[in-house]
Amino acid sequence: MESIPYKIYLSENELPQAWYNLRADMINKPAPLLNPATLKPMTAEELAPVFCKELIEQELDDTTPFIPIPQEIRDFYKMYRPSPLVRAYCLEKALDTPAKIYYKFEGGNTSGSHKLNSAIAQAYYAKKQGLKGVTTETGAGQWGTALAMACGYLGLDCHVFMVKCSYEQKPFRREVMRTYGATVTPSPSNTTAVGRKILEEFPDTSGSLGCAISEAVEAATTQEGYRYVLGSVLNQVLLHQSIIGLESKTALDKYGVVPDIIIGCAGGGSNLGGLIAPFMGQKLRNEADYRFIAVEPASCPSFTRGKFAYDFCDTGMVCPLAKMYTLGSGFIPSANHAGGLRYHGMSSTLSQLYHDGYLEATSVKQTDVFKAAELFARVEGTLPAPESSHAIRVAIDEALRCKETGEEKTILFGLTGTGYFDMVAYEKFHDGLMTDYVPTDEDIQASLSELPKVDL
Amino acid sequence: MESIPYKIYLSENELPQAWYNLRADMINKPAPLLNPATLKPMTAEELAPVFCKELIEQELDDTTPFIPIPQEIRDFYKMYRPSPLVRAYCLEKALDTPAKIYYKFEGGNTSGSHKLNSAIAQAYYAKKQGLKGVTTETGAGQWGTALAMACGYLGLDCHVFMVKCSYEQKPFRREVMRTYGATVTPSPSNTTAVGRKILEEFPDTSGSLGCAISEAVEAATTQEGYRYVLGSVLNQVLLHQSIIGLESKTALDKYGVVPDIIIGCAGGGSNLGGLIAPFMGQKLRNEADYRFIAVEPASCPSFTRGKFAYDFCDTGMVCPLAKMYTLGSGFIPSANHAGGLRYHGMSSTLSQLYHDGYLEATSVKQTDVFKAAELFARVEGTLPAPESSHAIRVAIDEALRCKETGEEKTILFGLTGTGYFDMVAYEKFHDGLMTDYVPTDEDIQASLSELPKVDL
Repeated sequence: MESIPYKIYLSENELPQAWYNLRADMINKPAPLLNPATLKPMTAEELAPVFCKELIEQELDDTTPFIPIPQEIRDFYKMYRPSPLVRAYCLEKALDTPAKIYYKFEGGNTSGSHKLNSAIAQAYYAKKQGLKGVTTETGAGQWGTALAMACGYLGLDCHVFMVKCSYEQKPFRREVMRTYGATVTPSPSNTTAVGRKILEEFPDTSGSLGCAISEAVEAATTQEGYRYVLGSVLNQVLLHQSIIGLESKTALDKYGVVPDIIIGCAGGGSNLGGLIAPFMGQKLRNEADYRFIAVEPASCPSFTRGKFAYDFCDTGMVCPLAKMYTLGSGFIPSANHAGGLRYHGMSSTLSQLYHDGYLEATSVKQTDVFKAAELFARVEGTLPAPESSHAIRVAIDEALRCKETGEEKTILFGLTGTGYFDMVAYEKFHDGLMTDYVPTDEDIQASLSELPKVDL
Repeated sequence: MESIPYKIYLSENELPQAWYNLRADMINKPAPLLNPATLKPMTAEELAPVFCKELIEQELDDTTPFIPIPQEIRDFYKMYRPSPLVRAYCLEKALDTPAKIYYKFEGGNTSGSHKLNSAIAQAYYAKKQGLKGVTTETGAGQWGTALAMACGYLGLDCHVFMVKCSYEQKPFRREVMRTYGATVTPSPSNTTAVGRKILEEFPDTSGSLGCAISEAVEAATTQEGYRYVLGSVLNQVLLHQSIIGLESKTALDKYGVVPDIIIGCAGGGSNLGGLIAPFMGQKLRNEADYRFIAVEPASCPSFTRGKFAYDFCDTGMVCPLAKMYTLGSGFIPSANHAGGLRYHGMSSTLSQLYHDGYLEATSVKQTDVFKAAELFARVEGTLPAPESSHAIRVAIDEALRCKETGEEKTILFGLTGTGYFDMVAYEKFHDGLMTDYVPTDEDIQASLSELPKVDL
């Protein structure tokens, strides 16, 4: 066997031809989205005013295992994919661990994260449908940037509602979106009815993803020729993100490497769901076994402290209900620098897998995350995003456990993005001003008590 | 011949084994550095208090064509090299040009630019010499970040004097450097004699590279166990940066592609000198011919409006004299967002080549540069640094000329870095607030009148 390089690059013709639809291999399928008015499963017709047609088909399809990637999307992917799979030799050396650590690096494009994988797909289907534009929300700003890039490329109008605290902490993110021609509005805003209502009730709110979603959905459904697109949580997003896992597996297979543990940060689940997809498929088909670990912030612990139940996807309660691990749609996490992990719920697919015991979850505190981020930056070079650093933290912890036990485990984690726009957070960390807020049981009980009552 | 992919990646074992020393093939060698006190060529002994020993050898060696890259440096290079050579298919399509455009992308590492290529080399030799640390200056912050990364990796102390206007415009750059453990001081500062002197004379100065160099040299020579390192201008830097051109040539050769025009932005010359090195070597040996174009900002036009003469490398006049195209060491360019191109002089090697007619030069205005940057970002995805965008501007102009004439020229340019830390500049551009300052002939004459008098 050839020795393993620092970076494994696949060639352009090894770019996957099809996305992998994990749901096709699940015995217990993720529960359907429900119409909030009727509490019946949403039909394609009911979803059509909000979402693009072909994306609805992908959203509802839980039987087709492979969905071909259109050539136009593959051409766009070639601008930044296949992304490198990196052997973290320097991190292994710094930790003095017998573990072998790999990471799939998705931050090598201007959006700074994996979000572009689904952004270009969603923008492509919107364009194909003849729409004028799309609306969306963004937290950390990575999804918004990705969508702005995709829309700029295809000539689609792009309107982004950006969670207010991110908008203020990351003014430069806004300028990147503007460079790609997008309109960016801080959320909650006065431009929508739901925004005005939230502002009346909580004038000092720093916003939340759930609230920005409500505004973006309203903006899409009240304008001719617009639809709403979303960067996480939905099945279609996990489908598009499966390209992360597919490439990772092809790269590892080339060198005969089989991971023991696969680790991803989890906000809405887009990265984790994409990274684990083909490996989880093998596990579901009893072809192989892996440990999967979802890592979430202690400040927003939907898997580890939430409830598996139907809930609203947004604060304004205008979206369909999804069955998922949730902290309640009214849960507003404290200011945390991993803006991309501040969502109250979790992908239905991942929630079902977690519920069925295929997936573990753990939560980590912010300062521990930044300690890991700084170590990683110094030895591996790349400055990681706070979100990604949650996975780094647990990968390091697992590698240190191997050091104690002497086990030579192979660890794969997702390095979802870079931290260039997170320097305010790094500054707080350097200056010792970073806090570790963890919600109390009462906080969580309060928001969970507002869950909608659904009997199926 | 295989069809050319969007990105040509070399494998790890195609990483160059040696740097190429362009001076070995020059008939008219670049003029030696002079001792400012004696006006005699600086000896290795005289340079020893300022620079590291092995770097001085590299600086003075104008006969050895290939200098092996130590294994430790090659190992570090593997973290981010070989860097991709990209075929700009999308840009070609957007311009509707018959030209074939390639760019070597050096921004895929956390320092955001090619500067890391020389930073790790200089830090390595400092470490090997047993030094405690190094000092340097930084303009745009890319060199400082690169040096901080290299020193963080090797465990060396790193003290960066950052040009004040960049320090203020780019606070996040400072935090990246701190993440890697560096100390960052805005220049001019009160921490050095030369800084205090400059502040007394010009209390409102926004600083300059020349002035930050003076401070860094003073800080290095007045502390035990420190030396000064520099990210551009010097021969040793061009030597290390030759890896850009060597990889580019290997990648092009693989596909039988021969460039007609090679374009690079030019501040002190590190990127341009590195990119063109092996191609210029062929031209000097009469083995091939290429057009080489240096692109500088109209606000700091050392090639196009400067004088080929001995001058101080720094404002404080503590450094050796170099023979180069210069605007005078007292020339302070107006605020321009390409902080990395605000140096009053130019590499001696490139200056000699320009003087001897091997190299063309042109200057471009800031708003034209940002128009090119925005177009490039939208169609090629990557958000370019303002410095790099100077080369993009001229590459686009040449490609548009091909459209007029129908010529299918092959254009290669250096995409030296990303613009994530330049969003203030992009914001000004979006808001129509960007200015195009060009110095008057009187401005330039005034600073040129202060050139030191040297008769050799």
